[in-house]
Amino acid sequence: MRLTDLTTPALVVDAGALEANLADMAAALPGPRLRPHVKAHKTTELSRRQLAHGHAGFTCATVREVEGMAAAGLGTDLLLANEVLDARRLGAVVEAGARVTVAIDSEATLRAAVDGGVREVLVDVNVGMPRCGIAPGRAGALADAARAAGLTVRGVMGYEGHLQMVGDAAERARLTAGCTDLLLAAHTDVGGEIVAGGGTGTHAMNTACTEIQAGSYALMDTAYTAAGLPFRQALTVLSTVVSTTAPAGDMPGWAVADAGLKAFGMDHGNPSVPGGNVWFCSDEHLVFALDAPPRAGDRVRIDPAHVDPTVALHERMHVVDGDDVLDTWPVDLRGW
Amino acid sequence: MRLTDLTTPALVVDAGALEANLADMAAALPGPRLRPHVKAHKTTELSRRQLAHGHAGFTCATVREVEGMAAAGLGTDLLLANEVLDARRLGAVVEAGARVTVAIDSEATLRAAVDGGVREVLVDVNVGMPRCGIAPGRAGALADAARAAGLTVRGVMGYEGHLQMVGDAAERARLTAGCTDLLLAAHTDVGGEIVAGGGTGTHAMNTACTEIQAGSYALMDTAYTAAGLPFRQALTVLSTVVSTTAPAGDMPGWAVADAGLKAFGMDHGNPSVPGGNVWFCSDEHLVFALDAPPRAGDRVRIDPAHVDPTVALHERMHVVDGDDVLDTWPVDLRGW
Repeated sequence: MRLTDLTTPALVVDAGALEANLADMAAALPGPRLRPHVKAHKTTELSRRQLAHGHAGFTCATVREVEGMAAAGLGTDLLLANEVLDARRLGAVVEAGARVTVAIDSEATLRAAVDGGVREVLVDVNVGMPRCGIAPGRAGALADAARAAGLTVRGVMGYEGHLQMVGDAAERARLTAGCTDLLLAAHTDVGGEIVAGGGTGTHAMNTACTEIQAGSYALMDTAYTAAGLPFRQALTVLSTVVSTTAPAGDMPGWAVADAGLKAFGMDHGNPSVPGGNVWFCSDEHLVFALDAPPRAGDRVRIDPAHVDPTVALHERMHVVDGDDVLDTWPVDLRGW
Repeated sequence: MRLTDLTTPALVVDAGALEANLADMAAALPGPRLRPHVKAHKTTELSRRQLAHGHAGFTCATVREVEGMAAAGLGTDLLLANEVLDARRLGAVVEAGARVTVAIDSEATLRAAVDGGVREVLVDVNVGMPRCGIAPGRAGALADAARAAGLTVRGVMGYEGHLQMVGDAAERARLTAGCTDLLLAAHTDVGGEIVAGGGTGTHAMNTACTEIQAGSYALMDTAYTAAGLPFRQALTVLSTVVSTTAPAGDMPGWAVADAGLKAFGMDHGNPSVPGGNVWFCSDEHLVFALDAPPRAGDRVRIDPAHVDPTVALHERMHVVDGDDVLDTWPVDLRGW
C-alpha cells in the first residue's frame, strides 16, 4: 500500500525515526531501566517493538491501558502509575494471570486496591508538581498501612512532570535532583526495590530512579524540541487539501486541509504545516497559507502540537517508509 | 443504572435539557427548515430523537458520518456539507439506497462527485469566512459545469461560521444578512430549490436560507452563552476525584479528577468545574481547587469548553435524569 491509498486524516509514523528513537533510548536506558509509558501511543503493536528493544515492564495511565496490554500478552509487569478508586477491573486482570501494580497516595486508594484484588502497590509521592502523590513525609506511614492491609509495597514513584520542558539542560538536571532527593528520602521510609519516575525530558539526568517512565520519546513531540533531546519527531497527520482560494485584492490566498479539531490534540495550540502559516482549525478543517500554493487533492503532512492527545483521536496509525505503508497498527488502548 | 455505576470519565447528557433543546429548535425551525448537523454529537441515537422532532434530512461533515447515518437507517436525505476529493465511499452509500448530496466548490470536487458515483450536489459558496466555498461570482459557472457533467445541482450552501459567536444579536443579524445577500445572489445564478447555511448562533436571524444546518443546539456549548441563545447546556463529563492534597503553608489545597486532555476538546481552553478553579489538565488528570474541598472518590461533573471535539473523544454518552441513567448511546460516527 502507498501513502496515496490512505483515507485522510491519518496518523503516519516514520518507521526509521521510530526505530531510531527506540534504539537510542534502549541504549541510554537498557532493559528494566526503562518502563515505557504506553499513554503516549496507546498502541500495543508499538509496545511490542519496545519489548523487542528489551523493556518488558510497562507504565499505564488508565485501567483500559492495563487491560489492553494484558490482553495483548504484554502483562509481564504492568504499572498503573495513577490513582484509582475502583480497582475491580485491575483485580480481574491479576486474576487472569498478569502482574499489575497500582499507585496509591491515600487511605482511599489503598482501600480500593485491597477491595479490587490488586496485591502490589507503589506509593506515589508528590515531588513538586501539584497533581497526585502523597507528601514525602507521610509516604512511610502509608506504606506501613498498606503492608498491614496485606499489600506488597514494591517501592515509590514520583513524577517531576513540571520539569520535562525546562529548556536549559543543566537547570533541568539541578531541579530534577531536588525532586529525586525528596523521592529517595520517602523511599528510605517506604522500602521496596523500585524507585520510579522521570520522563522523556529528564530521562538522561534522573539517575536516582531505578526505572524511568518515559513515553513521548517513541513518537516525540515538537514541544520537546526546546529541551535538546536526541529523539526525532516520528508522527505526522496526513491530510488532503480539499479546497483552495486564490489571492484577491488585499486578501492572500489560502488552502483547507481535511484535518481539524477532531484530528489534533489542541492543548499546545495549532498544529503546524511545514513551510506554511496555519490560520485556524475548525472541526474537520485546517486553514493555512503556503508559500507554494497547493492544489485540491494534494496531500500535506501536518505536525501536531501535542502527540499524546492527538493519538487518542485516531483509530489506527500507519507505519511508513517514504511513500510505502509498511504496516497499520490499531490504536487499541483508547477509552477508559 | 445509577450515575455512581458509571466508569469515569464519562459523557453525561441531561435528558430534560436535551429534550427541551430539541423541542425549542423544532418549534423555531420546524421539519425541513432544520437539517441538523450530526458533527456536533456524532451519535445516531441522538439523530433519531431529532428525526422524531420532525427533521428527516441531516447534515454531515465527514464521509464516515454519512456512512453511519445511512447504516442506521437515517439516510432519507444526507448532505455532506464539506468538500471531498474521493467520493467513492459516498457513491457506495448511494448505491445501497440512501440519498446523498455533496458540496462542491471547484472543478476537482465536481470531478470527484462524478467519478465517485454521487449524482446530487450543492454549490458551496464563500460568504465571508476564509474556509471552503467558491467566490459568489463564480458559483453559477460551477453549477453549469456540474450540470454539463450530468450532476443534479440542488442549490447552494454558504456557512457564516465566523458570525456564530458574535455577542450582540442585532449586530449578528446585520452581519448575517450581508452573508445571505451574497448567498442569494449566487443562488440566482446557480438555481435549485435549496439555500442552506446558518448554525446555532444565527438560526433565528438567518431567514434567507431555506434550511439551517445547526448542530450545537442539541447539547449546547458554554461558548454560545454569550450569544444569548435559548438552549441549555446538556452535556457534562462525569469524573471521579482520585487524589486530594490539603493546604500547607502558603500553598492552597487542590484536587485531581480523572478526566484530562484525552477527555476534553481543548481548543477553547480548559474545562470548568462548577464552583471551582481549574489549574491545569494533563493527559488523564484535571487539577482544580474547590471552595468545599472534595474527597477521593467524590464524583464531579465538569463542563467542557467545546462540546464537538469533546464528544469525539468518547465511545458513548449516557442519558441521565438526576442520578438515574436512562440510556447509553454509542458515539458511533467517530473517525473518518
